[in-house]
Order: sequence, then structure tokens, then C-alpha cells
Amino acid sequence: MTYCVGLLLNEGIVLLSDTRTNAGVDNISTYRKMYTFVEPGERAIAIMTAGSLSVTQTAIARMDEAIANPDARSIMSAGTMLEVAEVVGETLSDVTKQVRSRMGESAQSARASMIVAGQRRNGAARMFLIYPEGNFIEATEDTPYLQIGEHKYGKPILDRVVRPDTRIHDAKKAVLLSMDSTLRSNLSVGMPLDLCVIGIDTQQITEQRRIEPEDEVFQAMSHAWSQALRDAFQGIEI
Amino acid sequence: MTYCVGLLLNEGIVLLSDTRTNAGVDNISTYRKMYTFVEPGERAIAIMTAGSLSVTQTAIARMDEAIANPDARSIMSAGTMLEVAEVVGETLSDVTKQVRSRMGESAQSARASMIVAGQRRNGAARMFLIYPEGNFIEATEDTPYLQIGEHKYGKPILDRVVRPDTRIHDAKKAVLLSMDSTLRSNLSVGMPLDLCVIGIDTQQITEQRRIEPEDEVFQAMSHAWSQALRDAFQGIEI
Repeated sequence: MTYCVGLLLNEGIVLLSDTRTNAGVDNISTYRKMYTFVEPGERAIAIMTAGSLSVTQTAIARMDEAIANPDARSIMSAGTMLEVAEVVGETLSDVTKQVRSRMGESAQSARASMIVAGQRRNGAARMFLIYPEGNFIEATEDTPYLQIGEHKYGKPILDRVVRPDTRIHDAKKAVLLSMDSTLRSNLSVGMPLDLCVIGIDTQQITEQRRIEPEDEVFQAMSHAWSQALRDAFQGIEI
Repeated sequence: MTYCVGLLLNEGIVLLSDTRTNAGVDNISTYRKMYTFVEPGERAIAIMTAGSLSVTQTAIARMDEAIANPDARSIMSAGTMLEVAEVVGETLSDVTKQVRSRMGESAQSARASMIVAGQRRNGAARMFLIYPEGNFIEATEDTPYLQIGEHKYGKPILDRVVRPDTRIHDAKKAVLLSMDSTLRSNLSVGMPLDLCVIGIDTQQITEQRRIEPEDEVFQAMSHAWSQALRDAFQGIEI
């Protein structure tokens, strides 16, 4: 499994993904699930993927090919973020159908979903969740976050602290704590993590880093959060 | 959906269930999902149910009938808690098969699972999770809790604070906070709640109460927990 979460905030877009993929619990590997596409000052787009690796890798490769071809419709030539979401949706849907057509009865396992977020110059920052069939939903002011993969463990903290006016620093904390809860409760989600921030109106990746298992800041945060939860728990009266 | 959670602790068994059932989001009702069976000083058993209401109600009715029949094997005549789990498993499996045999293609929706917990005089307190097919798993020292229904939202808090030596007072707090996280993140789980405690070696229900939506203690706890989480969140450094 996978856990990816994206926040669409007034100050920018904050994205976090894990890197674990598995075919059964005895075949576990590390794969990047976050892809960024940037023309500085013009557009910055990030895509996170969940589900069948054969589908997501092929879909990303097709999108890369389209970008390299000046005549093709691609996420770098699309006129708006909505069109970007449409291109991603069409590519994902096409690849899913092709993979499934060869799979027979196990076709249902060829499922993948994506979060695509970004901003074009003179356009609004937008974030979409693309379903395997290519249709999509969009993050709104009421629900400024989207999740794919193993999303339930990490949802309570997001429900409580994330609003459109959450600052970037707090937003990074929120997605890291949401991931931390998921890592603890589900073996199929694993370190390292990929974090990406697209500052509003920058059309740049303003921060991008990989957080390794031995990352001391993440470890300290994880430990402090456990302790804070236990302290909060002790302080509650019933 | 449903959320039921049970803890098996050194001091006793603590159980909490919600009461919401739905057939689609526009047909929502309140049904008890916790059933208790007590012969004071001899045995105390509690069963919580999740899944298809037609299956769980019929299975509970069958178990009641068997108890009323002195010649039948029932959860009140079973010699051990393991045998109690077997009786529950057989009943659930039989009812599931019968209901499914009439349902054709939609048979997969006739799924239900149960948590059964209790203690006989001179026996150990035990807790089991019964699957739709009648097989079961048991709570252990390493994993002293079991959940059925919408279990993921409420798992992180249990993973962090519940151990076999957790006191009953803290255990009640833990299941209520686990439920609170689930209520917030999932519409299909709803108040009121049913709480039940079986003190170790009492063979009695030592506490049983329904917590209504307007319950002031629960509301205050829910509010204090939200505030404590936000405070803890603000206190974390990254």
C-alpha cells in the first residue's frame, strides 16, 4: 500500500508521500511516488501515485513522453490546471484499460489513483484526486486536503488542524504527523518519505526533500508527538 | 457502518460500540450492537456485532433461543470461553450461509463479524473476534484489543496507550477517544454509544451505560481532547 496526502492552502501546496510498495508482505521495495514537473515562473506541478506500480509507472512514462513531444497534448502544454487534471485522468484511464485487457480475472488489481497539484502563471493553485477511471474530484476551501492509499489512520489529525489559512510550517507538521500515525498503524506504508512544497504564485518547487528513516528531526517529532499524545491522554478527565 | 472496540486487560474487559446502521446514507437508524449474557458469579459474556443487520439480528436471536432451550448447546451452557467462541462462530456461519443462499449475486453483502468477550468462574477472561465464516482470532498480551467495523481511524490512539496493565479508568478513556476520532472522521458511525465493563473475576457486568449525544461528560471529553491535540500540535517542533 501507500499513503500520500496533499494540502491546498492559501500560502501554497504541501505534499507528502511514502515510498513503500509491496507485492505481498514478503516482497517489499522502495519506489518514488512523487513526481515534479516545473518550468520555473511558468508552472509547477507535482503528481503523487498510489496503487498498481505497473500502472503508475507506465502512466508517468507516457506523460513524460508527451512532454518531450512538442506536438502532443501534455501536462506542460495544458492551458489550465483543470486541463492538466484531464490529461492525467485520460492517461491513467488509458493505461489502466490496457493493463487490464491483458490480465483477465485479476484485472481488478490493476487499480491506481493519483493526486495532481500545481499552479500555472496567472492561474489559481489547484489540487485534484484522479480515480482509476480517469474522473476526478478537487480540493476545496471546505476540504483543503486530499489523500490516496491508506488514508484512514492519518485523517483524524488533518480533520482537526488543517484549514485553508494554515501556515506552511504547520502544514508540514500536519502531513508529517498524519504520516507518522499511518506508519505506526500499518506495516505496508514505510519510510523514506518525499516532501514537496509549491509556494503560492511562485510556480516553483519551493522545498523538496527526502526524509530518511534515520532523519533526526522526524524521529524527534515522532517521539515528541507520542509523548504529547500520552500526556494529553493523561490530562483528559472523564 | 459500525465501530466496536474491546480491550482485554488485567483488571477486566472494556467494550464500546456505536449504534448507527445504514442502508445507504439516506436510510440511517439506531440499533443496539452490544448484547450481554450474565449469570451473576457464574459467567458474564458480551457480544458486539458489525455488518449486515439481518445476519447479526438473526444470529443473536438464534443464540437467545438456544439459551432458552435446556437441551441445546448455547453460550450459557458452554464449558469454556473457547467453546463460547465456537458456538458464536457456528451460529454466525450458519446464518450467513442461509441468508446468502437466498441472495444470489448480492450475497457478498451478507457479511457480519462479532467480538465476543467474557469470563466463566474458574476460567480466564478471554476475547475473540469472530469472522463471517465462523473462524476467529483471540486478543493476546501483545495485542490486547480487537476492533470490528470502521476500525482504522481509532487505531492510532489504541496503539499508543493501551497495554494489558492499563487501568479500567484509562481504558474507558481510550475506547471513548478512539470512538471520538472515528465519529469525527466517518459519518456512518454515530451516537449514542454503548459502554460495558466486565471486572476480572466478578462474572458480572460491573458497568453498563448508554452514552447519549447530549452526554455532557462525553462532550467535554471530546472537546478537551480536540483542544489537547491542537495544543500538542502547536508544541511540536520540526
